[in-house]
Amino acid sequence: MGKAMADLRDWLGEISDLRRAAALLQWDKQTMMPRRGADSRTEQLATLERITHERFISARTGELIEAAEAERAAGPPDSIDARIVSEARRLYDKSRQVPADLAAARTTAASDGYRIWVQARETDDFATFAPALERNFRLTREYVSCFDGQEHPYDVVLDDFAPGMRTGEVTRLLGEMRDALVPLIEQLAPRPVDRSPLHVRFAVEDQRRLVDRVLHWMGFSDAGWRLDDTVHPFEQSFSVHDVRLTTRYVESYFPTALYAAMHECGHGLYEAGIAPELQRTPLGTIRSSAIHESQSRLWENMVGRSRAFCAALAPVLAEHARGALDGLAPEALFRAVNTVQPSTIRIEADETTYGLHIVARFELELALLGGALDVSDLPEAWNAKMAEYLGVEVASHDEGVMQDVHWSEALVGYFPAYAIGNLIAGQLWARIRRDIPELEDQLARADLWPLREWLREQVHRHGSRYGDRELLGRVVGEPVRVGPFIAYLREKLAEVYQLDLA
Amino acid sequence: MGKAMADLRDWLGEISDLRRAAALLQWDKQTMMPRRGADSRTEQLATLERITHERFISARTGELIEAAEAERAAGPPDSIDARIVSEARRLYDKSRQVPADLAAARTTAASDGYRIWVQARETDDFATFAPALERNFRLTREYVSCFDGQEHPYDVVLDDFAPGMRTGEVTRLLGEMRDALVPLIEQLAPRPVDRSPLHVRFAVEDQRRLVDRVLHWMGFSDAGWRLDDTVHPFEQSFSVHDVRLTTRYVESYFPTALYAAMHECGHGLYEAGIAPELQRTPLGTIRSSAIHESQSRLWENMVGRSRAFCAALAPVLAEHARGALDGLAPEALFRAVNTVQPSTIRIEADETTYGLHIVARFELELALLGGALDVSDLPEAWNAKMAEYLGVEVASHDEGVMQDVHWSEALVGYFPAYAIGNLIAGQLWARIRRDIPELEDQLARADLWPLREWLREQVHRHGSRYGDRELLGRVVGEPVRVGPFIAYLREKLAEVYQLDLA
Repeated sequence: MGKAMADLRDWLGEISDLRRAAALLQWDKQTMMPRRGADSRTEQLATLERITHERFISARTGELIEAAEAERAAGPPDSIDARIVSEARRLYDKSRQVPADLAAARTTAASDGYRIWVQARETDDFATFAPALERNFRLTREYVSCFDGQEHPYDVVLDDFAPGMRTGEVTRLLGEMRDALVPLIEQLAPRPVDRSPLHVRFAVEDQRRLVDRVLHWMGFSDAGWRLDDTVHPFEQSFSVHDVRLTTRYVESYFPTALYAAMHECGHGLYEAGIAPELQRTPLGTIRSSAIHESQSRLWENMVGRSRAFCAALAPVLAEHARGALDGLAPEALFRAVNTVQPSTIRIEADETTYGLHIVARFELELALLGGALDVSDLPEAWNAKMAEYLGVEVASHDEGVMQDVHWSEALVGYFPAYAIGNLIAGQLWARIRRDIPELEDQLARADLWPLREWLREQVHRHGSRYGDRELLGRVVGEPVRVGPFIAYLREKLAEVYQLDLA
Repeated sequence: MGKAMADLRDWLGEISDLRRAAALLQWDKQTMMPRRGADSRTEQLATLERITHERFISARTGELIEAAEAERAAGPPDSIDARIVSEARRLYDKSRQVPADLAAARTTAASDGYRIWVQARETDDFATFAPALERNFRLTREYVSCFDGQEHPYDVVLDDFAPGMRTGEVTRLLGEMRDALVPLIEQLAPRPVDRSPLHVRFAVEDQRRLVDRVLHWMGFSDAGWRLDDTVHPFEQSFSVHDVRLTTRYVESYFPTALYAAMHECGHGLYEAGIAPELQRTPLGTIRSSAIHESQSRLWENMVGRSRAFCAALAPVLAEHARGALDGLAPEALFRAVNTVQPSTIRIEADETTYGLHIVARFELELALLGGALDVSDLPEAWNAKMAEYLGVEVASHDEGVMQDVHWSEALVGYFPAYAIGNLIAGQLWARIRRDIPELEDQLARADLWPLREWLREQVHRHGSRYGDRELLGRVVGEPVRVGPFIAYLREKLAEVYQLDLA
């Protein structure tokens, strides 16, 4: 390795360490921190993120990148080092547009907003939450205005979570998905399916044992992973050997904990699967939330709710449910967990209606960011979208506009990643079924190793080495498409509802 | 507030935030982190600590202090701001004496030394540990040589943990304490006391409830505190509203968990009691380990093992012990937890013999640092001290010279803080008994609020505003003295052994 490359790696390694430290402060805040520690934690995070940002956007970073670019000019363009330099260049050029004060203000607003959101939810009080939300969108507009030459202001925030994607493309993809989903839901939602197996009493301690079992099937190990409880499940990692998941337990509805855990473990497998030699480089984290969500949704739905996996799951559910699920038929479980049932809560939504929750949020974000919608009018607009796309009535802010953490933390532009992730998962799944002909037998035996290794080889190990388009090109030979996901869904729903949906 | 003062406060506030962040990484490493996360955590901590140190010793810190000194020259010398400036000056001048290379070498040696110590303990192998120990003392000598004009080389390290104390004073105090303790122990150790109530089977889950109850009496609240499990109990805080304790449970000996928790909670009350307006300044942490230990030892021993508090504790022990301690007499508990019983392990020593463990370590440290003792001769010297002061025979290095973590991590100069802390606690306790005549009644009712408020008012709220000598002068009107601690101990032991010890 040349001197310039070594210096750049050292410098970026320190920045990676600082980011990991900030991530731990975030994780702790949501899992371990006593409530009253919040104010000081907000200050600590703001300082850490400001200093990290200042270092990253400093002239020194630019000089080191330039020197490494010069040193590498003659080398192979696709080597790890070349990719480190080009990814550092991309992130540096983007970050430099944002003044440190604005970056710090966004961090503080995110932390405050989260706290206010938690409090406001206790009394279902949108009026208390609204000023924080207004500030978050105002700061997002300021952030967007730091960048020139965008086709659409939303392109800037979208690029933070799905680098290289454009608002126009997302609008087209989500529109196509919406147009396929709406008639499907209209056709299937009225048909009754027996969901009673999901509503048995299942003690939280028994659910913990169940979740532990399923996560270990997936690759969770106590030596390098943790699972904790939070109201809003999430995943975070501090190295490929330190991956942390959370889930949430509802005694009267076990799928909440089980599928949230599988979802977060899908994220965790991605981060645990990054090639260790990429750690402390810009390639050692995951560039795209869309790909990230493709992994979580794939494990949660395509594996977790598959007919084959239900054969492995049903007896284990019965084993842990103290009699309440004795004799549970895999087919009954498969039908129950795939019912099309429009509802108000995104994270509880079934696989089919889920996408419309995202479409609604995406459209509302666009309107809020562009100024076409005021925060004060948001609840009404929210409820109207829910009625229009899902035919449901929202009874409270808690199950309406205040259900998601994202906007409270100024995460604007994230939501499309979930839907795009579903679409990508559909493309990957089609490819996986061709590459692993024995997949169904393996899932039915809870033998998840071949699938995990396929994902590691094709996707995980690369970290941020490739952009979404390049990665998809390598793995499935095409850009994001709606078709495979809808085809997958139709095939599954035809089995669930015993109808011809082709 | 003037501009220079505001700038200095901002700058030091950031440094405080970075230190708190590093402390969280340390806490997590010992409580939550999956085992395989260790290597990355070491890198993250090293980066965070290096960057924090660089910022603090930078020319900018010096300029800001100088400007604030000039601005404050005309103001009152005892204001909070004046104290912030003078404490920043003290710490800055001290830190700047140490070349960055030496600071880094000490950090590395501490980390290596700890690892080697852990390994060497597994096979009770002093020969493997000795080179690390030699290096730690050599680097400590180099560190000492960075400072001019000391009466004694040990003054430099002592000042790190008990700022302002001198080796001569500690030698005199510990000598006087030793001379009082040795005959007391010789007289009492042979007398039998029934300790059987301490050795009942006490399920860990029941102990958790017991500890939770007692900690809440002390002021622990779920909103601002946590209690977790570790092999080596410790306390750490990230703000006055985020205080974390750990303890360790032994099913066959409940005092381990209970008294470790009370000890750590004593530390925690100190940190929680610092005036909130001192946070993010150099006064917002605790300057002196000696005063810190005075608080933990006061709660653990003077409260926790008092005759009065045993009246509150005995029925609660019985309540949680599922029959094993039914009818436990407070007097029997009081006698059992105050037995004088020489042993080889410091952290398990009773209140009376504890001090001699410290005297031995202090004398050995002095000899090692001064070169009068070689590391190779240390085990023999250690065992001789144990025989001389405590009359015990050391059967292995594990229960001898390799029992403590301190020297492995190059923490030379810390040990006296424990004994000086006991002496200070003795002085505070005498004062408290005069100031709160109803103290015994309150302890017997587990009404710990008046005591806690006294300590907060007199000691805790000041944070690092005063040096030890100044603080003691304000609170007890005298410097550290041995007499009150010995008098307290004699009075208690006379009750325990029903003898006239006056």
